[in-house]
Amino acid sequence: MKAGLITVGDEILIGQIVDTNSSWMASHLAEIGVGVVAKLSVGDTLTDITQGLDMMYEKSDIILMTGGLGPTKDDVTKKALADYFESEMVFSQDTFDRITTIFEKRGIKMTEAHREQCYLPAKALIIENKMGTAPGMWIEKDGKYLCSMPGVPHEMKYIMTYGVLPRLAAMSTSIYRKKTIRTSGIGESAIAEMIEPTLEEQDVNIAYLPSIGQVRLRLSKMGNDATLVESIVDKAVESISTIIRPHIFGFDDDTLEQHVGQMLLEKNLTLATAESCTGGYLAHMITSVAGSSGYYQGSVIAYSNEIKSSVLGVSQKTLDQQGAVSEQTVREMVQGVLALIKTDIAISVSGIAGPGGGSDEKPVGTVWIAVGDRERIVSKRFLFTKDRIINIKYTAVYALDMLRKFLIGR
Amino acid sequence: MKAGLITVGDEILIGQIVDTNSSWMASHLAEIGVGVVAKLSVGDTLTDITQGLDMMYEKSDIILMTGGLGPTKDDVTKKALADYFESEMVFSQDTFDRITTIFEKRGIKMTEAHREQCYLPAKALIIENKMGTAPGMWIEKDGKYLCSMPGVPHEMKYIMTYGVLPRLAAMSTSIYRKKTIRTSGIGESAIAEMIEPTLEEQDVNIAYLPSIGQVRLRLSKMGNDATLVESIVDKAVESISTIIRPHIFGFDDDTLEQHVGQMLLEKNLTLATAESCTGGYLAHMITSVAGSSGYYQGSVIAYSNEIKSSVLGVSQKTLDQQGAVSEQTVREMVQGVLALIKTDIAISVSGIAGPGGGSDEKPVGTVWIAVGDRERIVSKRFLFTKDRIINIKYTAVYALDMLRKFLIGR
Repeated sequence: MKAGLITVGDEILIGQIVDTNSSWMASHLAEIGVGVVAKLSVGDTLTDITQGLDMMYEKSDIILMTGGLGPTKDDVTKKALADYFESEMVFSQDTFDRITTIFEKRGIKMTEAHREQCYLPAKALIIENKMGTAPGMWIEKDGKYLCSMPGVPHEMKYIMTYGVLPRLAAMSTSIYRKKTIRTSGIGESAIAEMIEPTLEEQDVNIAYLPSIGQVRLRLSKMGNDATLVESIVDKAVESISTIIRPHIFGFDDDTLEQHVGQMLLEKNLTLATAESCTGGYLAHMITSVAGSSGYYQGSVIAYSNEIKSSVLGVSQKTLDQQGAVSEQTVREMVQGVLALIKTDIAISVSGIAGPGGGSDEKPVGTVWIAVGDRERIVSKRFLFTKDRIINIKYTAVYALDMLRKFLIGR
Repeated sequence: MKAGLITVGDEILIGQIVDTNSSWMASHLAEIGVGVVAKLSVGDTLTDITQGLDMMYEKSDIILMTGGLGPTKDDVTKKALADYFESEMVFSQDTFDRITTIFEKRGIKMTEAHREQCYLPAKALIIENKMGTAPGMWIEKDGKYLCSMPGVPHEMKYIMTYGVLPRLAAMSTSIYRKKTIRTSGIGESAIAEMIEPTLEEQDVNIAYLPSIGQVRLRLSKMGNDATLVESIVDKAVESISTIIRPHIFGFDDDTLEQHVGQMLLEKNLTLATAESCTGGYLAHMITSVAGSSGYYQGSVIAYSNEIKSSVLGVSQKTLDQQGAVSEQTVREMVQGVLALIKTDIAISVSGIAGPGGGSDEKPVGTVWIAVGDRERIVSKRFLFTKDRIINIKYTAVYALDMLRKFLIGR
């Protein structure tokens, strides 16, 4: 089964917004075995929409449209659909009642424009939109299908998830299975080299999806036999996991910050941080996890050397002789923050984020990270990039990766 | 002049990547008066590319294509172009020499596939790509133009900036001017209400571009007379600025965090922060600015109440009677961090980011923010949203906005 996507709206064509809807739709369609043959974005004009419908009807079995369903007069999608499917517009009392209820709750007055939204092509089956006013519309013509949805992302996602994807999954004969292996602290090419020998034996598609300090490996397979497809993916996951086990922190939607948080909770340990070059980003990653107050106590961001000595107790001798970006400094930062915040574990980072502050001996991108408790401190030097923001993010991810490895050994 | 965009590549159709190229292209084309009539994404097949070319040639004066120029065999864009323009492929010695030099520098061995990249349609004018191996190609047919570029964003941007946009600007008779007013601490609808009376007198297009805690107002105008267009935009900027002056922190590419940093530098003041609910995000915003170590000293992230009292000296009585999310707590946090880090100014925040921790009296999204020096502390209560990450970001932006207003008065 093949799908064609049409997004309608001038705001896409002038570059005011990035169209994230279509990649969301494409990846969710892929999961139920529906391939996207083309994506088209056109403005709010009847001619362009109709021309798009012609092209997509020829190429695909199902057309998914978003946008152009709002109450303002420049939204002409509905008119284009009524013309295209030679269907008169009828007033939908159900839709009117639903919109009225929403507006009463929000204390908004219904206008004529809102009433206009309730006229829908008679041939359309209404698909409920619990997230907004404009409903989805499902129309069949010559054995092919079309679904029109609002362009607001969370409304589109609701209609797709509850109205469209289940319908299409029931029609599709293809089975798609995927599993994503999530790694941290190792690069894409290093992983590729390690797993290359086993890949030839695995009958799956593999995609490397790298982000800063992390790589996701997506293994997928399409076929007609669900049991077979699943066992092929499972076997590949098992083979690859065996080889790169120390670098894997989770699967699918797991995140590194959730994973280390879970490890701390399970081991009943508390955490503090002492940050210099990351300037709060490490703490932000940790505290972006709901429930992080269960293990995370706080941080000292020692952006100046004065704070490193006065608040964290890094010795003046260390700062003078080794410098703020040194192994001894990050080790003393761990000791200092453990004493101050009284947690079981602490992480510290100090580095040169850039663009200024680099030297021949310690160029921009040089970072020291330490992780430790009262008995043992592990420290490591890194050389990241020349870019300030990327260095900050690399440092935070590698610090969490070092914490992960430290906790495994505890 | 009208443009049609075609992006080629299976990775877009399976939703593996979000197509940010086309919105970048669209917004840069708009600036030189070229409107985009449609955007099409197709897979790496001859038929689909050719059909796309047919459609776009009919609708537009210039087709801009990205993707499908890599050395691997599934990239067929070049073949499609040669067929479409009935042009044989010829070997480009210039391109070969350039690629050879790049590869020698990187220590990579040239393969037959790379040599293949140097065969280009004879009718194409080569546009240099200093960011990668595949050059841009510019072809004319029947008074209309086509330019094909690699899909790698920084390569496309280079070719567009130096090769394509100047050519199109020279052809275009339209002049486009824009100015963006940047505001913080006020919502989109409040701004709209304030400036509505003056908008009728202004002959410009206005776009409200809201982000968390900030609104950008883009005023633009297209016309044939550069002086006239510029004076119309300038006049609108002046009229609107007069009305919403207290909410404006800058223009065009200015950021709030840079702006407050600049104010601190000019007034020769140092800053510290004490964060609870933002968990480091406020410090991260401040330190994302290069050179922020010139005024920012550090922060205490007091995620637990123990740290609020032991490190920041918030009194146990305040925490017991008023709670951690209270006016008195954030005021004592300012005093505590000023004493500890010894800066001129401090900001503190304490709130309930969610999803847990809310009550009837203090629901999720309740946040107290204080800004002060040794003489004066300003504090304010906010109620943001139910979403943890959005609350964190709102709090940080409003904290910087309060700092901005505090510094104006100093």
